[in-house]
Amino acid sequence: MIDLENGRFMEQVEALTARKRWPDLRDMLVLLEPADIALVLGELSLERLPLLYRLLPKELAAEVFVEMEPEEQAVLIKSFSDTELKEVLEELYVDDTVDLIEEMPATVVKRILQHADPETRRSVNEILKYPEDSAGSIMTTEFVDLKQDMTVGDAFKRIRRTGVDKETINICYVTSPGRHLLGLVSIRTLLLSDEDDVIGEIMETNIISASTMDDKEDVAQDLGRYDFLAMPIVDDEHRLVGIVTVDDAMDVIEEETTEDFEHIAGMTHTDKPYLRSGVWETVKSRIPWLLLLMLSATFTGVVISSFEDSLAACTVLMGFIPMLMDTGGNSGNQSSVALIRSLSLGDVNFSDLPKVVWKEIRVAVVCGAMLAGCNFIKLMLIDRLLLHNASITIVVAAVICLTLVFTVFCAKVVGCLMPMISDKLGLDPAVVAGPFITTIVDVLSLLIYFQFAKLLLRI
Amino acid sequence: MIDLENGRFMEQVEALTARKRWPDLRDMLVLLEPADIALVLGELSLERLPLLYRLLPKELAAEVFVEMEPEEQAVLIKSFSDTELKEVLEELYVDDTVDLIEEMPATVVKRILQHADPETRRSVNEILKYPEDSAGSIMTTEFVDLKQDMTVGDAFKRIRRTGVDKETINICYVTSPGRHLLGLVSIRTLLLSDEDDVIGEIMETNIISASTMDDKEDVAQDLGRYDFLAMPIVDDEHRLVGIVTVDDAMDVIEEETTEDFEHIAGMTHTDKPYLRSGVWETVKSRIPWLLLLMLSATFTGVVISSFEDSLAACTVLMGFIPMLMDTGGNSGNQSSVALIRSLSLGDVNFSDLPKVVWKEIRVAVVCGAMLAGCNFIKLMLIDRLLLHNASITIVVAAVICLTLVFTVFCAKVVGCLMPMISDKLGLDPAVVAGPFITTIVDVLSLLIYFQFAKLLLRI
Repeated sequence: MIDLENGRFMEQVEALTARKRWPDLRDMLVLLEPADIALVLGELSLERLPLLYRLLPKELAAEVFVEMEPEEQAVLIKSFSDTELKEVLEELYVDDTVDLIEEMPATVVKRILQHADPETRRSVNEILKYPEDSAGSIMTTEFVDLKQDMTVGDAFKRIRRTGVDKETINICYVTSPGRHLLGLVSIRTLLLSDEDDVIGEIMETNIISASTMDDKEDVAQDLGRYDFLAMPIVDDEHRLVGIVTVDDAMDVIEEETTEDFEHIAGMTHTDKPYLRSGVWETVKSRIPWLLLLMLSATFTGVVISSFEDSLAACTVLMGFIPMLMDTGGNSGNQSSVALIRSLSLGDVNFSDLPKVVWKEIRVAVVCGAMLAGCNFIKLMLIDRLLLHNASITIVVAAVICLTLVFTVFCAKVVGCLMPMISDKLGLDPAVVAGPFITTIVDVLSLLIYFQFAKLLLRI
Repeated sequence: MIDLENGRFMEQVEALTARKRWPDLRDMLVLLEPADIALVLGELSLERLPLLYRLLPKELAAEVFVEMEPEEQAVLIKSFSDTELKEVLEELYVDDTVDLIEEMPATVVKRILQHADPETRRSVNEILKYPEDSAGSIMTTEFVDLKQDMTVGDAFKRIRRTGVDKETINICYVTSPGRHLLGLVSIRTLLLSDEDDVIGEIMETNIISASTMDDKEDVAQDLGRYDFLAMPIVDDEHRLVGIVTVDDAMDVIEEETTEDFEHIAGMTHTDKPYLRSGVWETVKSRIPWLLLLMLSATFTGVVISSFEDSLAACTVLMGFIPMLMDTGGNSGNQSSVALIRSLSLGDVNFSDLPKVVWKEIRVAVVCGAMLAGCNFIKLMLIDRLLLHNASITIVVAAVICLTLVFTVFCAKVVGCLMPMISDKLGLDPAVVAGPFITTIVDVLSLLIYFQFAKLLLRI
C-alpha cells in the first residue's frame, strides 16, 4: 500500500508532471485505489486537473471521478467534450449521478441531464424528488430483482445478463408482478442451492425494509445494527423502488457523526473536509454560535453584577467562581454528550425519560458528594493549614461545597433533560443541548453560589 | 417492521410469558431480526432468559446469542448443557467466539474452549494473541481461498463445498501455495466469467491489505474509504491470515466514535450502552475528569485571587469574567473538536501542522475582531446609553474588547495545537485536548484580561 501521508509520493507526481512524463505518471497512478487517486489529483492545481485526469483508463477514470470533491468535478465537467461527458455518465451508478447533480450549478446540471441516457434520467429525477435527509435521496435504483417462479438457474441467467450494471448483486430481491417486495435471496443461498430449486421456496420472506421517506440516518443505523449489505427501500404502497448499500450507509453515518461533533462544539456543518474549506467558510460556521453564546453570557454577567457589592465585601468568594462554573459545565456536558450519543445510536428514546432522569439524579448525588468532599479537604488542609489562607473559614468552605453539590445536581438534570426534550420536539439534540448547556449551568451555579453565600455568610 | 420503541410489543411478550403461552411467543419472536430478539430478551429478567431462549430454533438461537450483552450470554452459558453449548459454538463464526471469550470470566472460557472443535480452538487462540486494538483481534479466519490455477468452475465447486461455514463469500482470495496473498476475485466477477476461465487471469492483483498489527480503527476507516466489503489481513510475511468484514468495521467505527464523544466530554469509556451501565459504573467513568478539572481550576482561582484587590477597586470588571472565559472556551473547543474529528477521519495529519495553524490564526483574527466589534457596540449602546451604566467607560469597553481579540487568538491556536501534538506523541487527541482546553483557556483569558486592565485602567 502506497503511503500518501509522507508526501514523497506527491513529490514524485509533481516531478513527473513538471517533466511531462505522462506514461510514467499514468503507470504510477493506476496502481492506486480510486479514492487515493482522487486524493492525489486533488492536491494538484485545478488547471492541471483535466490533463492528468485524461491519463486514466476510462473505467478507472469514472471511479476516480465519483471520489472527487464537487469543485474538482465541476472543473472536469467543464473541460469534457460531450462524448467524454457521456462516457463518464455511463459508468456512474444512479446514486452517484444524483450526488453529482445535487452539488453542481444549474448550467452543469442541465448539461449532465442532456447527456445521461433516458433511463438514468428518469431514475435521477425520481430520486431528486425525495427530501434531502430521506432514505429515498441516497438509494440507488439499480438492484437485481427476481420473480417467485424463477428457478435458481433462471436467477443466475438474469444476474449474468443484467448484473454488470447493478451496484450490488450480493442480495437479490424477489418482487411480485406489481413490484411489491416479497422476499430476498443472497447470492450465497443461490450458490448453495440446486439449479432447479424455485426462488419462491428458498427466499427469505421475513424481511426488514425501510420507506423512501424514512430518515437516512435511521436507515443507515439499522443497516449497521442488522449487519445488512443493503437495505431495500419501498414506497407508500410497499413497492420496491431502490436499495441503500452499506458503503453509502457508512458515508451517511460518518457525515452525521461529524455533524454531531460540530454541533456539540457550537459550529454549523460545512460539507468540506477541514483543510479544504476556506477561512471565510470556517468563520461563517463558527461565528454564529460564538456571538450568540457571548451575548447570552450577559445573563451571567448580570447575576455577578447584582452581587458586586457582596463580592467586594467578601473577595475570597470571587476566586472560586471559575471552578464552580467549570465543574458545573463539565458535569452538564458529560450528561448531555452521553445522551446525545445514545439518542443518535438509538440506545435511548423518549419513553426512557424517567429511567434516564432517575439514573442521572443518582449519579449526580454521588459525584456531587465526592467532589464536595475532596474540595472540602483541599480547602481545609492545603489552603487553610498549609498556605495559611485565613480568609477560608469553615463557613466559606461550606458555601463552596454546598454549591458544588447543588450545581452538579442541576447540571446533570439539565444535561439529560435538554437532549431528550429537544429530540422529542424533533429538534437536533446536538444543536440545542450542546453549546447551551454551559451558559445555562453558569447562571444556575452562580445563583446557587450567591444564595448560599447570603444565607451562611450573611453578606 | 415491528416497532419496538412504543413498548406495546414488550407488553405482549410479558403477557404471553405470564400466561406461559410458549408456542405463541415463539411465533412472535421468530418474525424479528436476531438483533431485535436479543433486545426483547434483554428487557426480561435474567432468570427467565434461558427458558425463553430455548424457544428459538437452533440456528436463529445462535444468531441471537451473538447479539446479546455479555452478562446475558454468561447467564445462558451457565444454563446450557454440554450438548447445547457445543451446538451454539458450532453455529458461531470464529470472530464471534473470540468476542465471547474476551468478555466471559475464566471458568466460562475454559468450558467454551473445551467444547469448541479443535480447528475453532486453534483459530481462537491465534486471534487472542493479537493486542486489543489491532486488526488481528477483530478479524475472522474464515474466508474462501482459491488457487491461481483453478478455473471458475473449480472455484464455484470450492465455494459450494466450503461456503456454508465462511463469514463472507462475496470476495474470494487467491493465495500461493505458501499462503501469500496474490489477488482477489469478487463473486460478481466469477458469475460474469466463463466456467473455464482461469482464476489467475481474472483476479484483481492490485489489492490493498492491512497487517494484523495495524490499528483496528485505521483498518475500519480504510475499509469505508475504499468501499470494500472485507479487508484482507496479512501477517509479517505477507501471508493471508484473515479478513475484517464490513459489519465488524462498522461496529469498530461506532465504538471508537462513541469513545471520542465521551473523551471530549471528559468521560472514560464504558463498554455498555447508557441504560445498561449501573450508577456506580457511570460515576466511575465520570468522576476522574471532574475531580482533575476541578482541582486544575485552582489555577484560575489563583489568578483571580491575585487580582482580588484590583477587582474590588473596579468591580465592573467582575461581571465580564464569565463572558470572556466562556467565549475563550467556546472558541478553543471549536478548533479542538474540528481537529480531533479531522485527525480521526484521517483528513489531517501532523505534516499539515503549518497549514492548520495558519488557517486557525486567520480564522481567529476574523472571529476575534467580529466578536470584539459586536461587544463594543453592545457595551456602548445598550449598557452605557440605554441602561445608563456609568461605570462602563470607553476604556473599560476597550479592555474587554482587546481581551476578547487576544483570548480568541490564544484559544484557537491552543485548540488546534493540542490535538495535533498529542496525536503526534501517540496520545489520544480526544483525551488530552478535549477536556483540558477549557481550563487552559480560562487561565489565559484571565491573565490577558488583568494585563489589559492594569495597562489601560492603571489599577
